[in-house]
Amino acid sequence: MNQDFFQEFDENPWFKDAGVYARTVMTAESLPHILDEAIRRAFAQHGPAFVTIPNDLANKEIPADGYYSAAANFAKPVLGPGPDEQIKQALDLISNAKKPLIYVGQGTIGAADEVMKFAKKFQVPVITTALGKEIIPYDFEALLGSAARVASKPANEALQETDLMLFVGSNYPFAEIMFKPDVKFIQIDSNPQVLGKRHKTDVAILADAKKSLQRFIELGSDSAPSDWYAANVDNVANWHQYNDDMMNRTDGELRFEPAFKEINRISEDDAIYSIDVGDVTQNAVRLLKVNGKQPWITSGLFATMGVGLPGAIAGKLSYPNRQVFNLAGDGAAAMVMQDLSTEVAYHLPIINVVFSNDALGFIEDEQEDEDHEWFGISLPQTDFAKAAEAQGMTGITVTKVDQMKAAFDKAVELNKAGKPVLIDVKITNERPIPVEKLTLDPDKYDQQTIDAFKKRYYADNLIPLSEFLKRHNVK
Amino acid sequence: MNQDFFQEFDENPWFKDAGVYARTVMTAESLPHILDEAIRRAFAQHGPAFVTIPNDLANKEIPADGYYSAAANFAKPVLGPGPDEQIKQALDLISNAKKPLIYVGQGTIGAADEVMKFAKKFQVPVITTALGKEIIPYDFEALLGSAARVASKPANEALQETDLMLFVGSNYPFAEIMFKPDVKFIQIDSNPQVLGKRHKTDVAILADAKKSLQRFIELGSDSAPSDWYAANVDNVANWHQYNDDMMNRTDGELRFEPAFKEINRISEDDAIYSIDVGDVTQNAVRLLKVNGKQPWITSGLFATMGVGLPGAIAGKLSYPNRQVFNLAGDGAAAMVMQDLSTEVAYHLPIINVVFSNDALGFIEDEQEDEDHEWFGISLPQTDFAKAAEAQGMTGITVTKVDQMKAAFDKAVELNKAGKPVLIDVKITNERPIPVEKLTLDPDKYDQQTIDAFKKRYYADNLIPLSEFLKRHNVK
Amino acid sequence: MNQDFFQEFDENPWFKDAGVYARTVMTAESLPHILDEAIRRAFAQHGPAFVTIPNDLANKEIPADGYYSAAANFAKPVLGPGPDEQIKQALDLISNAKKPLIYVGQGTIGAADEVMKFAKKFQVPVITTALGKEIIPYDFEALLGSAARVASKPANEALQETDLMLFVGSNYPFAEIMFKPDVKFIQIDSNPQVLGKRHKTDVAILADAKKSLQRFIELGSDSAPSDWYAANVDNVANWHQYNDDMMNRTDGELRFEPAFKEINRISEDDAIYSIDVGDVTQNAVRLLKVNGKQPWITSGLFATMGVGLPGAIAGKLSYPNRQVFNLAGDGAAAMVMQDLSTEVAYHLPIINVVFSNDALGFIEDEQEDEDHEWFGISLPQTDFAKAAEAQGMTGITVTKVDQMKAAFDKAVELNKAGKPVLIDVKITNERPIPVEKLTLDPDKYDQQTIDAFKKRYYADNLIPLSEFLKRHNVK
Amino acid sequence: MNQDFFQEFDENPWFKDAGVYARTVMTAESLPHILDEAIRRAFAQHGPAFVTIPNDLANKEIPADGYYSAAANFAKPVLGPGPDEQIKQALDLISNAKKPLIYVGQGTIGAADEVMKFAKKFQVPVITTALGKEIIPYDFEALLGSAARVASKPANEALQETDLMLFVGSNYPFAEIMFKPDVKFIQIDSNPQVLGKRHKTDVAILADAKKSLQRFIELGSDSAPSDWYAANVDNVANWHQYNDDMMNRTDGELRFEPAFKEINRISEDDAIYSIDVGDVTQNAVRLLKVNGKQPWITSGLFATMGVGLPGAIAGKLSYPNRQVFNLAGDGAAAMVMQDLSTEVAYHLPIINVVFSNDALGFIEDEQEDEDHEWFGISLPQTDFAKAAEAQGMTGITVTKVDQMKAAFDKAVELNKAGKPVLIDVKITNERPIPVEKLTLDPDKYDQQTIDAFKKRYYADNLIPLSEFLKRHNVK
Repeated sequence: MNQDFFQEFDENPWFKDAGVYARTVMTAESLPHILDEAIRRAFAQHGPAFVTIPNDLANKEIPADGYYSAAANFAKPVLGPGPDEQIKQALDLISNAKKPLIYVGQGTIGAADEVMKFAKKFQVPVITTALGKEIIPYDFEALLGSAARVASKPANEALQETDLMLFVGSNYPFAEIMFKPDVKFIQIDSNPQVLGKRHKTDVAILADAKKSLQRFIELGSDSAPSDWYAANVDNVANWHQYNDDMMNRTDGELRFEPAFKEINRISEDDAIYSIDVGDVTQNAVRLLKVNGKQPWITSGLFATMGVGLPGAIAGKLSYPNRQVFNLAGDGAAAMVMQDLSTEVAYHLPIINVVFSNDALGFIEDEQEDEDHEWFGISLPQTDFAKAAEAQGMTGITVTKVDQMKAAFDKAVELNKAGKPVLIDVKITNERPIPVEKLTLDPDKYDQQTIDAFKKRYYADNLIPLSEFLKRHNVK
Repeated sequence: MNQDFFQEFDENPWFKDAGVYARTVMTAESLPHILDEAIRRAFAQHGPAFVTIPNDLANKEIPADGYYSAAANFAKPVLGPGPDEQIKQALDLISNAKKPLIYVGQGTIGAADEVMKFAKKFQVPVITTALGKEIIPYDFEALLGSAARVASKPANEALQETDLMLFVGSNYPFAEIMFKPDVKFIQIDSNPQVLGKRHKTDVAILADAKKSLQRFIELGSDSAPSDWYAANVDNVANWHQYNDDMMNRTDGELRFEPAFKEINRISEDDAIYSIDVGDVTQNAVRLLKVNGKQPWITSGLFATMGVGLPGAIAGKLSYPNRQVFNLAGDGAAAMVMQDLSTEVAYHLPIINVVFSNDALGFIEDEQEDEDHEWFGISLPQTDFAKAAEAQGMTGITVTKVDQMKAAFDKAVELNKAGKPVLIDVKITNERPIPVEKLTLDPDKYDQQTIDAFKKRYYADNLIPLSEFLKRHNVK
Repeated sequence: MNQDFFQEFDENPWFKDAGVYARTVMTAESLPHILDEAIRRAFAQHGPAFVTIPNDLANKEIPADGYYSAAANFAKPVLGPGPDEQIKQALDLISNAKKPLIYVGQGTIGAADEVMKFAKKFQVPVITTALGKEIIPYDFEALLGSAARVASKPANEALQETDLMLFVGSNYPFAEIMFKPDVKFIQIDSNPQVLGKRHKTDVAILADAKKSLQRFIELGSDSAPSDWYAANVDNVANWHQYNDDMMNRTDGELRFEPAFKEINRISEDDAIYSIDVGDVTQNAVRLLKVNGKQPWITSGLFATMGVGLPGAIAGKLSYPNRQVFNLAGDGAAAMVMQDLSTEVAYHLPIINVVFSNDALGFIEDEQEDEDHEWFGISLPQTDFAKAAEAQGMTGITVTKVDQMKAAFDKAVELNKAGKPVLIDVKITNERPIPVEKLTLDPDKYDQQTIDAFKKRYYADNLIPLSEFLKRHNVK
Repeated sequence: MNQDFFQEFDENPWFKDAGVYARTVMTAESLPHILDEAIRRAFAQHGPAFVTIPNDLANKEIPADGYYSAAANFAKPVLGPGPDEQIKQALDLISNAKKPLIYVGQGTIGAADEVMKFAKKFQVPVITTALGKEIIPYDFEALLGSAARVASKPANEALQETDLMLFVGSNYPFAEIMFKPDVKFIQIDSNPQVLGKRHKTDVAILADAKKSLQRFIELGSDSAPSDWYAANVDNVANWHQYNDDMMNRTDGELRFEPAFKEINRISEDDAIYSIDVGDVTQNAVRLLKVNGKQPWITSGLFATMGVGLPGAIAGKLSYPNRQVFNLAGDGAAAMVMQDLSTEVAYHLPIINVVFSNDALGFIEDEQEDEDHEWFGISLPQTDFAKAAEAQGMTGITVTKVDQMKAAFDKAVELNKAGKPVLIDVKITNERPIPVEKLTLDPDKYDQQTIDAFKKRYYADNLIPLSEFLKRHNVK
């Protein structure tokens, strides 16, 4: 195709705005340089680079002795721990706080030990972002989970009480809604552009999170056991009990929790979880009992539905020897179901789990909360097991609790034989408990309202943080 | 969600570049004006307008007494026939031409009678763009079809012979490749921006195509019967015979042609054809025996695969009482197969035909022609009938000619009962005849090469235009 | 410079958004096609097209036998008068209206006779957009001028009274502010995208303005003499008298009006006025006594200061034999004063008039009206005559009324000798009368307020429209 | 102005592409956050951020207790010296090199001592980018100057001989043209995106330049005195002599060099040089005898003419107590001469020097070299002294060498009195010596060609590097 014709079409502007680099190669000679630039920028800016290679160039020869090979040399800048002066200033603030929290994001990947050591030493409970789910082991006593709606009860409750936040390696976008404006605020980040972005800071430390937390631990003295910390530990235990009870339920219509029990049961020590967007994100963030070695992938910023399947494929291609899960609701699964073919064609033994409630549950709940007209939330029934079979993959349908174990055992067996599998779990459309609007505290709600809430969400044994604070004499 | 947060996200730049209008509504009060503007521009510029309405506005009231309601007044500008002086100048050129052609595009929709009358009166054979397939009835004696690769043999042959082109209502982008630079060139278009864009013009008439052709007919005298015209008519008849023979074949492995025979058979008088991209586009442009009243939709400019299914849905929603076909290859069908659900959920009785050869045939052929390495053209086998069943639609698989009639009869029956259906036709991956590289003319190729071509493409009875020109003494 | 390097720099995105076409030529072969495309689009879309030609191509040969030459064929589409049915519907509305107006924009350039004939026949006073200043002769009895702030008193007053508007060939952007929502509204435009854009329409006619007005005149009967029309004619005469009085003033500090008296005096029959942005736009729109043959150029949409000088250069280059004025305030003149050189270098005898009040008066007045802090409105004193001399142009400074005539006579003399000239008129910073907030009507304001207004603006003899309506018994 | 109207205008797309941030404030409440974000990004990305504040907001109150104040906390990330392992690897390469060079860019600002210590210790001559002119004192014996055209003779000659380059803190865009592909290449940069971008690297060190050079010095042993180094030192001395001779010339027509002699003479120890674009950039880069404490500003990437005056204003506003020069050619000076007013209005005592040759000399020389038609390079004569006077600034014209000293003494005197001044130096249009096409080496050119070159450029005593290499027995 001649160039005149080619010039009729502009480069896709989306590339330019969505990625860190976008270029159409015009001559074969410039191809190596452009590819090199694209790789370098993708590495440095941690984002997608787009290079368009016109078909015309498919036959052209390029000299082998490249002038450019920067990708081979790429190095990631690492900062130090930050100045002692700032760290001491921060330690002072922490020691004067009554209800401190540490809030960690993806910048603390690889620093779980430091976070947990910090939490115990200074008696500071831990919140992670939803995207940081994988960082801290589920069973750490003071892990409150994440905040807002894709979230856990203890985290939301603690955020309403806290008087100091240590915000580490995070760019959490809902800070204006979830964080109180008047708390003391200490921030550690390696990106100067993010320091102070979400909240006015009392101390802002430009540093590597892991090194900085280490230095906090070196420079600070052990705090005495704190009632605030203890109350939060109790609150976590109560919340975990609630979730365990739900996962162990065998009566009533089938809900999503028993499937998570099975997923936890069969999960290998270094399993990779690719989580789609919707109720499943919320449920996975609460119920997966991760151990700190299990990557957890989802679409955190744009909440793009359909991300579970490609994420799982990427996981399996990158780590062929690790167990990979794709967990998706039926809305998202339907958007990408034709790519089950890809798993079959490339022999990618992935465990695909679809939660089918014939609805876009997460959106339905938003509409309920905001009194919108219900709009666009019902889904046609789909037989995902059959859709898998149409593409050459074994499909299993589960409609009752007692079919669950056999289905997941079968999935493990097929995976071991090198085959992907899909389990379609047909669940009720009952709403998961909304931790962002807990209705448990008798100081805030009348008993009738509380009872209705408990009944709807099977929450008879769920206790508000306020109660634990009272028990521990925290004011 | 507060506005600060909202401002973190820019408008999708793709909207701005892809459409004729893109705006995010910021206040409820401005919604009516912005919607009105969007509608007006979409009409006037004949393209998509994008309005983003933030969820925040879902509850807001808007005064009912709108200030704007321009959509109700929209009118489409229509030009006149162009100046007589130019038309006479053009008629002179035509009467002096030995081998004139008229090449018509979408600007002649609604002007089929004028085109055919013109063709006969001035003895000028007709080419249409592929997108203009629907305009002129298949059985018009001098309809050569379309040019290039998604094309017909007579059109490509005539373009190499012609000495004058009347180019009407078209913006055909491959003109530089397909049109000879030195032919006389007369152009009629209602868009001043397109006059002369594709070829230097001898006469360029800014006019409404239909009115202008009428005026040509009024002002010009009848031409004497022309050997050039007669030779082309014979060539068309020979090409039609070749295609009929292929559609009637019952031996050998199953090819796509017998399915088109059935489609022609069951097509209603005002059927709508939504055609996907790939070999199916080429095959449909050659084999569908349209009558001038049957819309033919595809993705002509960007050749976007997967367009068949949404096109059919749009067709059925717009014209609920007309028969609608979705014809797609397996590559394209796989891209959008999860939307068969939509046909079921909205009770849209569409006839979906998938041609499965487990390959991206059109690209495979390009790679064959340009000596590329074969790359990315094989497809995993999919049982599309089962995929349809998974979504609640009847699916039928056809693997032999003798199953064909029953399958299409069943489709008609289901449609009449208000139900969509999918027929998966399992075909060989033999290449359709490449009319852009015909190897038939003994003046250009040796007999062995010609024989190999004829054998590969079942073309024993196919005769080159050169032979017809000789028979009619055209030099 | 090699292409790799070149690719480091993207095309200027501003080009893409600001113009109708933007392309960087990559090969010499594609240059003719791209230039042809650029010209065609610039003509068709009536806007700037940008072609970037890399320096690398400066030495390359291009074959002379161009394939493209569309510019030569360009034709502008012209519509008809619109359907009689719509015109009759509109005539009915007009004949039933009590206080009709016709509001004409640039789409009526060339149709002054039709507009004036229409106005008299149907007894409808005329408003023009500010950009349409040149269309209708100043001395037409029913020409109310333009509306809003760069405007005339009679137009603003009539808009508050009217019950029907005929809106012709205009896309006036302040319609929402200046037009009443409930008037009957008839629109004529050749651009379907503009019909209804500014106001809900009762009749929307897609048509050529001139042809359509002719048809109105043919189809409609003469209206009886109307009191509404007569009152407006009187109002215009009173307003003209006020302006004449101001232009004839000889006492007090020097104001801008006496300079306009001189400009009117020396203006040739086909003079071209290039008007800069600021108070000068407002003053020129009120005071220039144009005759319908004198083009009037300014920056109407973005109000770009500094536009007067380049506009005058463009005017003189396009029409070397016509008299050209550049009228600018000192703020705008300072922005582009280095281009006086260009007038000298290219021997362009232009009359440059600068009005110096050491302030950005137009903005100052906005800040006064909206109670802003005064900000960024004072200017350093500049000796523009000396600045002209520095660049080889004769500069004249006028500080008193009695120097005015000689200065302008000298300007004419220099121009006749082929030389440009600059006259720097040093004026007071008194505010021009704000017709958008007239304080004259005793039904609306107390006498003290009216008196203060009259005193400040020398408006003792200025009479509100309400008074003329009373005199003519219009209710 | 209501929002509907406002929405008619899109944000200026240029802002979005040219800056690091672009946002229109939509509500008064969001103003503090958006300003904070803009400041933070401007700091972090070292570029302009654009915030558009609609006039509507000018009266709105904003709560004083801001949530955001990130600008106060901004910190710049600083890396370490890089790994010892890499530094040792680099030291090995350097000790094995015969003709090493160190090439330093703006990343070494503040590291002049380290660069000079490195140069002497390892016997490595130094090249700076043109933008790095200010870093190393002019009189450092082994400072070769900068490369290419805005450049010095010794740097260009050394680049053709070198076998190893240490490339530090630079993103020099002409590397592909000026650097040999096969030299050993060591790079130090703090930006991972730049490592390897301009040349394949043998060692690529992600590090802070200053710290890394210190570590080189600590880890490496002293090199023995090197003939290569000595030859380059001699070459620098010869080049300096040539420039001194030119600056001291008193006969012939006035050239630019004597003015630079005066500028050097009156320059204070911490003077700031704002240099415009054109021949003046080239001349300043060669002739200003900077001492390492004198900032040197120009437009290095886009070579934007007219940058000298605003640069000087910025310099004076930022450092009111330092001497500031604006050095510009007449082409550039004419583009911005109306802003001399600004220096007067804000009492900014700047020394403006204009070099007037009535031509765009730099472009003229490019056209000479590339055999283009001469196009667009002549300028109208302007009396810049008078133009300054028109704006209230003292202007001085110099046409002879013997007026020079008095003019610059007067400038100093006026500056001391708090007043800006402009000196217009009227010079010949003789071409400055083209160091990128030296014609001196008898091994490469015949004597006649050499003689013509020497005559044209007064270069009788200029000696090629090849001669010094011979004298020092370097092969």
